[in-house]
Amino acid sequence: MRLSRYFLPILKETPKEAEIVSHRLMLRAGMIRQEAAGIYAWLPLGLRVLKKIQAIVTEEQNRAGAIELLMPTLQLADLWRESGRYDAYGPEMLRITDRHKRELLYGPTNEEMITEIFRGYVKSYKSLPLNLYHIQWKFRDEQRPRFGVMRGREFLMKDGYSFDIDEAAAKHSYNQMFVAYLRTFARMGLKAIPMRAETGPIGGDHSHEFIVLAETGESGVFCDKNVLDLPIPPADVDYKGDLSAIINQWTSIYAATEDVHDAARFESEVPEERRLNTRGIEVGQIFYFGTKYSEAMEAKVAGPDGTEVAIHGGSYGVGVSRLLGAIIEACHDDNGIIWPEEVAPFRASILNLKQGSADTDAACEALYKELSAKGVDVLYDDTDQRAGGKFATADLIGVPWQILVGPKGLAEGKVELKKRSDGSRENISPAEVVAKLTS
Amino acid sequence: MRLSRYFLPILKETPKEAEIVSHRLMLRAGMIRQEAAGIYAWLPLGLRVLKKIQAIVTEEQNRAGAIELLMPTLQLADLWRESGRYDAYGPEMLRITDRHKRELLYGPTNEEMITEIFRGYVKSYKSLPLNLYHIQWKFRDEQRPRFGVMRGREFLMKDGYSFDIDEAAAKHSYNQMFVAYLRTFARMGLKAIPMRAETGPIGGDHSHEFIVLAETGESGVFCDKNVLDLPIPPADVDYKGDLSAIINQWTSIYAATEDVHDAARFESEVPEERRLNTRGIEVGQIFYFGTKYSEAMEAKVAGPDGTEVAIHGGSYGVGVSRLLGAIIEACHDDNGIIWPEEVAPFRASILNLKQGSADTDAACEALYKELSAKGVDVLYDDTDQRAGGKFATADLIGVPWQILVGPKGLAEGKVELKKRSDGSRENISPAEVVAKLTS
Repeated sequence: MRLSRYFLPILKETPKEAEIVSHRLMLRAGMIRQEAAGIYAWLPLGLRVLKKIQAIVTEEQNRAGAIELLMPTLQLADLWRESGRYDAYGPEMLRITDRHKRELLYGPTNEEMITEIFRGYVKSYKSLPLNLYHIQWKFRDEQRPRFGVMRGREFLMKDGYSFDIDEAAAKHSYNQMFVAYLRTFARMGLKAIPMRAETGPIGGDHSHEFIVLAETGESGVFCDKNVLDLPIPPADVDYKGDLSAIINQWTSIYAATEDVHDAARFESEVPEERRLNTRGIEVGQIFYFGTKYSEAMEAKVAGPDGTEVAIHGGSYGVGVSRLLGAIIEACHDDNGIIWPEEVAPFRASILNLKQGSADTDAACEALYKELSAKGVDVLYDDTDQRAGGKFATADLIGVPWQILVGPKGLAEGKVELKKRSDGSRENISPAEVVAKLTS
Repeated sequence: MRLSRYFLPILKETPKEAEIVSHRLMLRAGMIRQEAAGIYAWLPLGLRVLKKIQAIVTEEQNRAGAIELLMPTLQLADLWRESGRYDAYGPEMLRITDRHKRELLYGPTNEEMITEIFRGYVKSYKSLPLNLYHIQWKFRDEQRPRFGVMRGREFLMKDGYSFDIDEAAAKHSYNQMFVAYLRTFARMGLKAIPMRAETGPIGGDHSHEFIVLAETGESGVFCDKNVLDLPIPPADVDYKGDLSAIINQWTSIYAATEDVHDAARFESEVPEERRLNTRGIEVGQIFYFGTKYSEAMEAKVAGPDGTEVAIHGGSYGVGVSRLLGAIIEACHDDNGIIWPEEVAPFRASILNLKQGSADTDAACEALYKELSAKGVDVLYDDTDQRAGGKFATADLIGVPWQILVGPKGLAEGKVELKKRSDGSRENISPAEVVAKLTS
């Protein structure tokens, strides 16, 4: 992408309304624009990251055996009356009346609708287990939306729902999602710690939140530092096999949100030097809720002996749009964002330090064409901005690799390759840059 | 994908509520489920096709130089008051009030919002031309939603908006989208004819609808048959260069919807044997509307001489979800859907004609693994259904290639490869099947 033909509206000034660093940086880097309180347009740079995050979530869900569908944003109020949540949900639910006076709502979550879909088609235990997910825009009418995409009203969520014949099978589905979530967040460059948590309005017996540690997080967390170094399950983990060893490894080490924190247990189990009490950002939550929705909504299948059984359910959420904020909170410095490679909007940017000079223009064009042809997502800063401005933009938007092309280096056949994450630089030939970024 | 582990709820009976064949087939093939009038859930098979269509639209937009962003589904009513369309839009607009009594609406289109975004950042003619698009769910509260996804209320649309300094530049942007649309629909296996059309509530001076010919279409159309054989511009068409030769070629041949049809001109220009009067489905529409929104909403830039100029705009829509219906209307037979290869949910399906027999199971497994490893999207029908049922399912869901694996053929080292589009069959070895599907 040539920056001169792109739409990257960088802000020079720090927007006053932004209270936290991720919100400030997303506004300054031209990633989002507020269209109403808690409602954002995703500008091209922001959308690129959103799509990369979405792709990782999709890949890891599919790998774990979940099946993607897509439910609509609007739902019938009557569906929520069946489960009893229509009146219970309160003012966070955006209630809508259409031209024929039918009551709709903008879905904040989809337990009811997926249960309605399930019961419409699935009649026998032979179709189980089944785990269905979608990635769709949701709306929660927050009293006080703030922190940018971290607590927006219209937000993108992946929500998945498992259907099993009994509790043991449902626990296996829960464990599959536990493992898939460990992999999902790790691939985004995050340390997201699963912590025992309250179940809240979803209900249920058993829940874990996945929490990214950050000083700006919304909730207090307590954990044993050892949990930070646990290994992430590999891509070829056997999702059909017994996952309990992995789950036990992660859940036997103390980690809990303040809501369910047990100070006595914490102090007895964790030596003082390993006690971590900090704040965190929730990026995912998984629930096992048994027959709560299937009983209320008559989602039953014929069991092996022919009798009807209410299915055991779980639900599994990832805050897809919120993750951009969480990643930036965890990955930034004074100059801007430092994207982990897998979610970066571009992998590299070429900075032409003397735009209009025949040599640098030719060298940049050649690099741009070769990297693009080899499938590297590259942003070419071909604008008239001065070198200092180009450095600042590149640091701000946080692309992992910067290729600095100036007349002095070129005279020796070299360009400078700068790694955004540690600032390290090396003078190498354009051919070496290509080799390095495509290896 | 193994069918036994997939979620493909085929309906045996033809749903009574469906009036047209695409709606019937989408329901029968387990692609969609109605959740409210004109509001559908996309089941896994339907979502696969939707994503492929979306990917083609995205690729061709990017190729033509348009830049993707993503605007939210909800918009502020005040934004539409600025352009004067809030009161004019009528009951098709879904109006919403949030908990703080702020007036919102579910966007039916985005001229106002994109203009607001544009004017927030772009100040100089040097940033032009600019063409921004998004693919997002829209809502139009149709009086009488029907025909499934063809006239739904919640629907997925690609809408793009161009910003230019003057009419000549805006015409070039218009022409770029004209060419991109020709390519987009052709890649989906459709003959979509650009026809002069009314501009309707978007307004403007100049518009073309892209119409797929189908007896079940919503509007009457008149054209010269020669337009059906015009060449589609190639992938390497020079979008920056002069496109007027292509546009002239397409627009000089008579083709018009009934709203703007000129019977006298039709009869004088088109010899009787080439006159086609049929019906059609609109799958895209492009508009040039000059300064209509930029004057009303103060979207102005500094021109080369420093004076402020209202930008010249165009907008460009593709009915992404509606395209599934249009493709099925154009591509089906009595047994079901016949997907064009580029949009098919799977490229091939393997039918194990004797599930549980060691030979057919092993041959199917081997084929499934090899094709999957080579990147072919393949559905393996490993269910207990009898052969007749598997044939019917495969024909119904319309996957382009069926691989029939039975004990008789296997005894001779052969399987049967059936092409869905013409029913042709050949007995070849599994290795030849793999070679054919991966060449």
